[in-house]
Amino acid sequence: MNNAKNKNITAREIDFAKWYTDVIKQAELCDYGAENGSAAGTIIFRPRGYAIWENIQHLLNQKFKILNIENVMLPLLISQKAFQVEKDHIEGFAPECATVTKVGNNQLSEELIIRPTSEVLFCRHFSKIISSYKQLPLLYNQWCNVVRWEKNTKPFLRTSEFLWQEGHTMHNNDEEAKNFTLKMIKLYADFVEQQLAIKVIVGAKTIHERFAGAKMTYTIETMMQDGQALQAGTSHYFGQEFTKVFNIKFSNKDNKQELGYQTSWGVSTRLIGALIMAHSDDLGLVLPSTIAPHQIMLLNLSPKSDKFKITVERIFKILSSHFRVLINEDNKSFSYKKSESQIKGIPITIAIGEQEIENQVIKLILRHNLDTIDVEINNEKLLVTTIINQLNKLNKDLFNSSQKKLNTSLKELTDFNEYHKLVKIHKGFFIVPFCDQIKCEEEIKSLTGTTSRCIPLEPYKKPSNCFKCQTPNSVWTYFARSY
Amino acid sequence: MNNAKNKNITAREIDFAKWYTDVIKQAELCDYGAENGSAAGTIIFRPRGYAIWENIQHLLNQKFKILNIENVMLPLLISQKAFQVEKDHIEGFAPECATVTKVGNNQLSEELIIRPTSEVLFCRHFSKIISSYKQLPLLYNQWCNVVRWEKNTKPFLRTSEFLWQEGHTMHNNDEEAKNFTLKMIKLYADFVEQQLAIKVIVGAKTIHERFAGAKMTYTIETMMQDGQALQAGTSHYFGQEFTKVFNIKFSNKDNKQELGYQTSWGVSTRLIGALIMAHSDDLGLVLPSTIAPHQIMLLNLSPKSDKFKITVERIFKILSSHFRVLINEDNKSFSYKKSESQIKGIPITIAIGEQEIENQVIKLILRHNLDTIDVEINNEKLLVTTIINQLNKLNKDLFNSSQKKLNTSLKELTDFNEYHKLVKIHKGFFIVPFCDQIKCEEEIKSLTGTTSRCIPLEPYKKPSNCFKCQTPNSVWTYFARSY
Repeated sequence: MNNAKNKNITAREIDFAKWYTDVIKQAELCDYGAENGSAAGTIIFRPRGYAIWENIQHLLNQKFKILNIENVMLPLLISQKAFQVEKDHIEGFAPECATVTKVGNNQLSEELIIRPTSEVLFCRHFSKIISSYKQLPLLYNQWCNVVRWEKNTKPFLRTSEFLWQEGHTMHNNDEEAKNFTLKMIKLYADFVEQQLAIKVIVGAKTIHERFAGAKMTYTIETMMQDGQALQAGTSHYFGQEFTKVFNIKFSNKDNKQELGYQTSWGVSTRLIGALIMAHSDDLGLVLPSTIAPHQIMLLNLSPKSDKFKITVERIFKILSSHFRVLINEDNKSFSYKKSESQIKGIPITIAIGEQEIENQVIKLILRHNLDTIDVEINNEKLLVTTIINQLNKLNKDLFNSSQKKLNTSLKELTDFNEYHKLVKIHKGFFIVPFCDQIKCEEEIKSLTGTTSRCIPLEPYKKPSNCFKCQTPNSVWTYFARSY
Repeated sequence: MNNAKNKNITAREIDFAKWYTDVIKQAELCDYGAENGSAAGTIIFRPRGYAIWENIQHLLNQKFKILNIENVMLPLLISQKAFQVEKDHIEGFAPECATVTKVGNNQLSEELIIRPTSEVLFCRHFSKIISSYKQLPLLYNQWCNVVRWEKNTKPFLRTSEFLWQEGHTMHNNDEEAKNFTLKMIKLYADFVEQQLAIKVIVGAKTIHERFAGAKMTYTIETMMQDGQALQAGTSHYFGQEFTKVFNIKFSNKDNKQELGYQTSWGVSTRLIGALIMAHSDDLGLVLPSTIAPHQIMLLNLSPKSDKFKITVERIFKILSSHFRVLINEDNKSFSYKKSESQIKGIPITIAIGEQEIENQVIKLILRHNLDTIDVEINNEKLLVTTIINQLNKLNKDLFNSSQKKLNTSLKELTDFNEYHKLVKIHKGFFIVPFCDQIKCEEEIKSLTGTTSRCIPLEPYKKPSNCFKCQTPNSVWTYFARSY
């Protein structure tokens, strides 16, 4: 990846956190809620930030539709009484719950919380509508906002309100539900690798890191450029834990009443944070072509001239039927406009100047590696296929780079002392044999500030003694500092 | 329209309100929040109800895109302090505002309200990001949930939480902003007439009925089958009222600081209520083809037979590349399955039975008029074009019927006593000369329970004396009982 710099963006080497917020600000992805009359820790999704989310929604909805998953929308507010039914669940979320106690000047007789997640409402609804095995599997999803009060917030990665999709499904039996939990984490893995071009590790969460109330949590874990891990999506298997509490019963094939088997799964707007921290550089945003709000920027280098306007519009007409294209006609210099296009992460910039019109040859300036490619204007077909190929190559390049970073930075260890020493300086995942006991994990966390990320679906090596407590037959597990 | 009945649905003639909730329940469009662990007055959008909203979103987004309107997402919560800046606005909304006072067990130092609308946040954001005329017009929209506490709720029509889009724009001058306000109400009118097949009256709200803080409110008004009007969308012109309060300034072409000119406009999930009450009948839902979640239902009349399965799947394959198609393979009778398809408002039902396979001819059973049309299975092209034509005709039929109902029920009056007598029994709009004085309108409202709906954009007749107070030169205005 390139080492060029932009004066408005702190270099990653100097201060990664500052680089991140600089990129977000310069690329105009979001603004801070607290500066705009909302609560601390919330954000405004500006057009380019929201367009990334819309692209993610569109691509995931296509995948959901193939599996016959149906979109629904449940209410924002949950009654305190309803929420308090499932113990583990309430313990996990209660301290972060924003609570509505009055309307206008009137106190409510029963307090309402803003949904931090919607298991409770889905369960109540399922218990009303499910009666027969013929209705199962019932596969629901909703795209919505949720509120979880956070002390330390960071745009996209951790915000007091965020956008997500939460899938909730009900199944005929244990095996079907378990398989579906796995199917969804693999769907997320494919999506993040193919569309977001970020390498993932697919695995199971340790007992310590499971979702409140879940019997099993699968996760996809990604590696950011600063060496910290980021959880990019999760899929939970609940078994009959919630269906028992909420009395979700169906009459099975033998005409007997049976409790349903449940899953839930979700990804959120933190994927936008992952995209930024996985691919971007000191010039600004770098985005895969699949998800970039605009794929091509046409720079008109002499906006007042009719001759230029005609050529720019001719090219725009050719390209905009295939790609998401913008025209920049500002009265600014080529280098200023090129830099703006780079800050915004537009995959291909094409400048139309005197020379281009004279020679009828344009340069595709690629964002991610700064390469340039000459193409004749008059060969429409070649122009379009060249761009298609370059947009595909962009995604491959980004994915390969992401995969390489993850692999080369992976550190295999069996000794906790060495781990403790390295943890402050090593950038990347550790893979260690771990006993998966809550007490052991709590000790590791308090001593090192790191957490287990996942137990990979495909075992890394044969089990060994736990790197911390020496329990034999411990499974190789990923650990890292994380967002 | 047809007069057939379904035993689970109360006839419209007998009890229109009960008919409405019966249709919603039987068609599985929504469920009640209060019965599912949420607050009273909220609803769950079930898959078919939400799919209608997704279709509305999709079609409106296409129209917004042509106008270069950009989607954004602002936070859910607004600080009380920020909200209280604009007086008229706060007076209009304060009594309905759900207020967050604590998180977990901790009281917040500043209370937050859940957005009832987002003018305040958009204004704060605009004041931060706008500096030059070159950025204008700035055209933003957001699709989101809002909360307005309602005492009398009705699914889709009036709910404590609802889904909507709210557009907020900032302009260079008065004329541009006024024109844009009008452009958006006309866009809504086109959308509702063409895609939802409901006749609208486009007009301006009276002073009494304007949006809190707006200088002008345009509306599209529709007529339901029970003779009550329903406001289906609004577009507001704010002038510089809010930009003064929020100090939204830009440097104009003469390099002088000037306050921006503002509009906002929105439609909500009450459009789903309008769809139901405009088109549906005693058999259940009737939907235009543009917005129906599924356009065709294939009934397999012998689900266990391979021969049937093959034919049904062959037809499904042909049709599903052109239309939204479902297969019903339940082990139920033809009439039961046909009735289910009708309840759900699926425009065309096709039953595959012994006779159809033998003759290779299928019947298209049309939902809205119960007509049937024979088509040969083996003539694929004819089958597809016949269905395309029938789906188009469905929308035309529904629109014509809606238009006819509105026109034939319109009552022109100039005398308030007559109005007062008729208002209890007349089903439809009244058109009357009205002075547009707040005091006069309040009297009419308290005496008759009716409100002005709009002053039509195209004058109905020459001005005359107010039908109530006799003020001369009063403009012809629509009045009605309304939802």
